[in-house]
Amino acid sequence: MTVVNDNNAGVKPTITPLQRIDVEGGDVLHALKSHDKTFQGFGEAYFSLIAEGAIKSWRRHQVATLNLVVPLGKVRFVTTVNGESFEENIVSSQHNFVRLTIPSGLWLAFQGLEKEESLILNISNRVHQSEEIDRRDLSHFDYDW
Amino acid sequence: MTVVNDNNAGVKPTITPLQRIDVEGGDVLHALKSHDKTFQGFGEAYFSLIAEGAIKSWRRHQVATLNLVVPLGKVRFVTTVNGESFEENIVSSQHNFVRLTIPSGLWLAFQGLEKEESLILNISNRVHQSEEIDRRDLSHFDYDW
Repeated sequence: MTVVNDNNAGVKPTITPLQRIDVEGGDVLHALKSHDKTFQGFGEAYFSLIAEGAIKSWRRHQVATLNLVVPLGKVRFVTTVNGESFEENIVSSQHNFVRLTIPSGLWLAFQGLEKEESLILNISNRVHQSEEIDRRDLSHFDYDW
Repeated sequence: MTVVNDNNAGVKPTITPLQRIDVEGGDVLHALKSHDKTFQGFGEAYFSLIAEGAIKSWRRHQVATLNLVVPLGKVRFVTTVNGESFEENIVSSQHNFVRLTIPSGLWLAFQGLEKEESLILNISNRVHQSEEIDRRDLSHFDYDW
């Protein structure tokens, strides 16, 4: 048995169900409100597209907390503290419309699961700064995609 | 000649070009940073879908400033202070990727221009409150869509 001595060992994404409101001409989809429990300040909002089957590899924010929403498509998000165990969340704009809050210190990689491209909104409490992001190749952790 | 006596007569959307970054597996698209000039605080982020040809009718926020981004598709945004004159902006995730900042006091309506649905992100400096939104039918202003 491996004894893991890591202060982040219990860190997991927070999953918050979001409302999708049926509106004539096009639905309204909630993302984040300033009074939500997982809101930790606004630094930057940006989008990532992800093609079906494509995987964007491991990254870990040392400081930033991410709030991830998938308004179109379907995405597999995988997180791990140290590669000993993994948490997988499959988020879809239609069938599992939730916000994932990823605290700093967690490794994250994600894969597109729908035809053409899926879209991810990230609302981070920090402006993007590459210095606070650690990056590793996909093979760095042994996860069966 | 009609003399317009309206303090908002000169109010227009602010147009800010956004970066679209070519990334293997799916592009990254900027939306809003906390140090951008048009950022006036974070209240809520939400999405509106808009079907091709569909129009979401006139609404005017008395308090909130909107920051609108179109990460997928193509949308015609029309604004007016009082129906005397109109400003039209056609925003596209591919060919005119800009953020529109809509100050309070401006009437706004918008139309989907691409097959299937286009997607709009709104980052507002206020949490959505229906009390601060005036609404009118499409026929209220004489605009040739």
